[in-house]
This record gives sequence, C-alpha cells and structure tokens, in this order.
Amino acid sequence: MSEVTRVVVDAMGGDYAPEWIIRGAVEAINEGAKVQIILTGKEDVIKKELAKYTYDQSKIEVVNATEEITCHEAPVQAVRSKKDSSLVVGLNMVKNGEADAIISAGSSGAILAGGQLVVGRSKGVKRSPLAPLLPTSKGYSLLIDCGANVDARPEHLLQFAKMGSIYMENIEHVKNPRVAIVNIGDEEEKGNALVKETYPLLKECKDINFVGSIEAREIPNGAADVIVCEAFVGNVILKLYEGLAKMLLGEIKNTIMSSFKTKIGGLLIKSSLNGLKERFNAKNKGGAPLLGLKGLVVKIHGNSHNEEVKSAIFQCINFKENGVNEKIAENIGKEVAQ
Amino acid sequence: MSEVTRVVVDAMGGDYAPEWIIRGAVEAINEGAKVQIILTGKEDVIKKELAKYTYDQSKIEVVNATEEITCHEAPVQAVRSKKDSSLVVGLNMVKNGEADAIISAGSSGAILAGGQLVVGRSKGVKRSPLAPLLPTSKGYSLLIDCGANVDARPEHLLQFAKMGSIYMENIEHVKNPRVAIVNIGDEEEKGNALVKETYPLLKECKDINFVGSIEAREIPNGAADVIVCEAFVGNVILKLYEGLAKMLLGEIKNTIMSSFKTKIGGLLIKSSLNGLKERFNAKNKGGAPLLGLKGLVVKIHGNSHNEEVKSAIFQCINFKENGVNEKIAENIGKEVAQ
Repeated sequence: MSEVTRVVVDAMGGDYAPEWIIRGAVEAINEGAKVQIILTGKEDVIKKELAKYTYDQSKIEVVNATEEITCHEAPVQAVRSKKDSSLVVGLNMVKNGEADAIISAGSSGAILAGGQLVVGRSKGVKRSPLAPLLPTSKGYSLLIDCGANVDARPEHLLQFAKMGSIYMENIEHVKNPRVAIVNIGDEEEKGNALVKETYPLLKECKDINFVGSIEAREIPNGAADVIVCEAFVGNVILKLYEGLAKMLLGEIKNTIMSSFKTKIGGLLIKSSLNGLKERFNAKNKGGAPLLGLKGLVVKIHGNSHNEEVKSAIFQCINFKENGVNEKIAENIGKEVAQ
Repeated sequence: MSEVTRVVVDAMGGDYAPEWIIRGAVEAINEGAKVQIILTGKEDVIKKELAKYTYDQSKIEVVNATEEITCHEAPVQAVRSKKDSSLVVGLNMVKNGEADAIISAGSSGAILAGGQLVVGRSKGVKRSPLAPLLPTSKGYSLLIDCGANVDARPEHLLQFAKMGSIYMENIEHVKNPRVAIVNIGDEEEKGNALVKETYPLLKECKDINFVGSIEAREIPNGAADVIVCEAFVGNVILKLYEGLAKMLLGEIKNTIMSSFKTKIGGLLIKSSLNGLKERFNAKNKGGAPLLGLKGLVVKIHGNSHNEEVKSAIFQCINFKENGVNEKIAENIGKEVAQ
C-alpha cells in the first residue's frame, strides 16, 4: 500500500502539551515517517511551537480548535458540549474520512467516550475495547479490554478476543497468537459467571487460537499473547502492573542508595538496570488502541513526551498499512452475516 | 488473657508436607509460643518426623487422619467425602470447640470450602472472605476478599470492610485503618455496578474509616490499610502481585548476571537486595485468614516451609488473644440486631 497515512495529533492533550506533543510529531516526520500529520488545537500556540523546528512543512497541517477538554470534566458531557476542542475536532476528521487515525494524551474518559460517540463502531462491533501492550519476560502481550466498557457480556469478550488476535498478528507479527481469558484458576469450571459463560464461546471459536484460562500470576511470564478480560479487571491489571513495577524499581533504587558499598554496586549495574526500566516503560510500543471503530483512536499516557507521540505515529501507520481495520470489519462482519 | 490457644496444623497439606510443616510447629514451641498444637494426619508418619526433634512433648498432640485431599480434587466434593482427611478432621476440631484455629498449606479450594461448610460462619456473616496481607512501600495492606466468594454483592463487601478493619486494628495494630474500595478511577461515580452500589454503603458506615476509591496503581504505595474488592478482582491483584514481583526480581537477577561488571555490582548490593526480596515474601506475616467463621482458618501458601508455619501459629495466637472473632461477632451481630 503506497497511500500516505493521515494522523491527527491532539496538540493540546496531556501533561506535556503542547511542547512535547508537537516535538514528537516533528520528530516522526524527520525520521522519515510516511505520514501526513494534522495538529489540532490553538493555531497560534501550535505555530509558535512549530517555528522552533526544521522539517518538511508540507507534512504537517494545523487545524484550529479553540477549546480544550480537561481531565476534571465529565467525559460524555465534555465531548458533546466542546465541539471545538482539539480532541473533538480531531475525532470528527477521523469520522469524516479526512484522517485515518487520532492520537491523544488528553482525558482518558473523553478519548474513550469520543471514540465511540464521534468516530463510531464498525458494523457488527458491539463494544470497542481499549487494548494496551504489557511488557513481559518474553516480549509483549495485549491486554483487552482495559477500561472502555465495564460490565461487559460474554459476546463482547468473544469479539475482543478476535480483534486482539488480529492486532497481534498484524501489528506485532505474532503468528497464531495464543488467546487466554483471565481467571482465578486454570480449570474450565472455575471463575465468575462472566468467565464461565465466555469460556465455551472462546473454546468453540475457530478464528482464534484459544489456550484456556490464565491466572494473573502468569501474565508477567508472557503465557499468552492476547489476554482477554472485562474492562474493570483489565484496568486493575494495567494499573497494578504500572504501580508495582514503579514501586519495586523505586525500592531497588532506595536499596542501592542506602550505603556507600551499595552505591558503588549500583553504578556498576546502572546501565543494565536502565535497560530493564526502559523496557517496562514501553515508550517505543506506541499507545493503547481503541479497536473496532471506523477509524483508529490511540490513547497515549497523560504524561507522554515526544518519544511516545512519535512511536504512536508509527503505530498508526503500521495499523493502516496492514489493513487492521479492514480485517476486523471483515471478521466481525462475517459474524453479523451469519 | 491467659488461656492457651489451641491450633490445629494440617500436617499433610502442602508441597513440603509433612517434613517442613512439622518442623515449623516444633520451632514455634521451641520459640516459646503460648500454644497447644494438634497435628492432624497419618499418625505414624507424623510421629516419625517428631522423633527428630527435642521439644516439650506436652505441647504437641497428634490426631490420626488417614486420608489426604489433593489439589486436583473438586473442593466441595472432597471436603464432603473425605471425612478422615487431615484437613476435615482438623476443621471438625475447630467446629467442635476442641481447637481455636487451623492452619493448612493444602488445597486452597478445599480450605475455603471446608471453612464455610465445616466450621461455619459467625451469626450474621453472609460470606467469609479470605484476606491476605500485601507488602507495600509503607508496610502491609489487607486485601479482602481474595478468592473465597466470586460475584459478591454490595452488602458482602460492606461486611468485608468491617471485618478487615477489625483485623488490621487488632492484629497489625493500625489505628483507625483507612478503608478503600478498588476502583478504576477515584471519583464516586466511577466503576462497575457493584462498586457504584457498594460505595455509598461504605461511605455511610460509621464503623469504618472509609477514604474512598483506590486505583490499583496506588495499592503498592500503601495508600489504604484495608483494600476492599470482590474476590475475582482480589485474586487477580494477589496473583499479579506475586507474579510480577517474582518476574521483576528475576529480571534484575538476570541483569546482574549479564556481565562481569554487573556481577561485581550485584555482589555489592546483594545483601540489601535480599532484604527487599525477603520483605516481598511476607513469610513472617503468617497466612491469609478466612474471616467471619466460628473459629479461625488460616490458609498458607502451598509452597510453605517451616517459617510460614511458625509465623501462622503466632498469628493464630495473636488472633485469639486479641479476641478478633468476638469483635467481629459483636460488630456484625449488631448489624443483625438492627
């Protein structure tokens, strides 16, 4: 596919907006990304930032949006009322086919609500899951769903499994990705009502490589490529993953700083330890896609810097070039046709 | 209180039974525990093990039990049919008032089922939660419930909050323990149906110090003393905690072993790092109590050695001497009387 991917970057969302967000966009261009970038937000502010850099100006367009959605606003309400916000203006461009994807580090709730309300779901998709990658000892696993739809039903989880498999196969190039459902034991009869009802649906589904239940303790070992769960549980897994990794690495730092001897020891292992920290940061893996929409919506961390923005741009290109949305539409559409 | 606590130790349950389990019991006696221990299991095997040690023989009694429950059996069925198993014989002693508590490293499912079926719940207690302590950067937090009752209702979670508060106040000596409910955001209107219904009950309850929602990322920072959640979520938190800590500490070990330079560095920080590992092991904190029963049932890890058994024995003494069960019965009984 030679067509250039068109990516909206919400220039005003996130703790380090607009400076670091815009810098990430410029860097993607300067690193040769085959992309057309649209920065949404206050035009004067964006242009002033852009003036700091040298880059191919034909590749970045600015679309003015005078409002901003903060993290303190009720998401649905904010998306509905702030039509001229950097997020909603961008979402509408995706909806209208003027862009293929949008990246935002702004209010998570507004991104999730806006994805479903403004861009809309693909035909047949019942819920649109948020699916971040988790670093494991073997690489990365996709956690799906992770915050978009609490109290999901079994048929939703089945669709999550299919969409997650397509993502891992096409974006992370995992052949025949192993799909598992989060459970509190590995036997089929274990679990809560939702898991017990979902298990047979996954087992019977011919489109996925279902390997059974996964206990949370096996997630860090990379025991499955696609980890299916209901959003509340997924959110707990994601947040605990981040919090515990941060706390443990912090405690190790404290340990190293506790005496002269350990400080010397720390100096000797510092660069290797930084490599580990870096991997757990997952900066280079882009953001969490909201799957099953008519376009791609990517949520990046609120504290994202240029690196995250840049890798999310490459992720969007990858997503478009590999026709992930078309594959999801075909797979789920098949289900609807049946 | 001068009465001696009577503790059953299931001598046949766990990966290192009976050797290390019995050793733990002997060590508790030799360290001056004010306890009467009853070892249940195959009498000849237990006596042969006991013969290895020197200890005050008046303090350990052996009660013969010819059967064993394995982890591969359906729990409820096993508890009902294997009346002469080391676990069920012990549970019956607690039920009949011949012992105050039982400790087992055997099948988790059988311990949970047996606690409720054989020992039975205190008057007014609707569900009996399993409540392990999680190590945090500040100390320990109680996670309640963590595997005993999936698909719990709001009124169950309210009782968990009360029982957890009583445990932390009396066993861990935390004054006015902060109670939080696991949620996917910290606003009151966030969450799934269960959390939304439970939140106001916790907020209105005068018996606890409710501090609101806790996001999973704040759990490792010790942001609450009593962490209330439904069992499926609690099990995921506990297992992920264990799995992720093990994986990260393993990765750090790999990092240290990766070159000559890092190996030297590792030697210098080794003892400090071991302290951290030790703390995350929580060996010295006993096991997970199943609260709200007519006696105390303590589940210790399947891979427990003598240290865990010993600290669980001290935990049982502590529990009895501080009258935790009486306090729970009084508090929940008050609710019933209303």
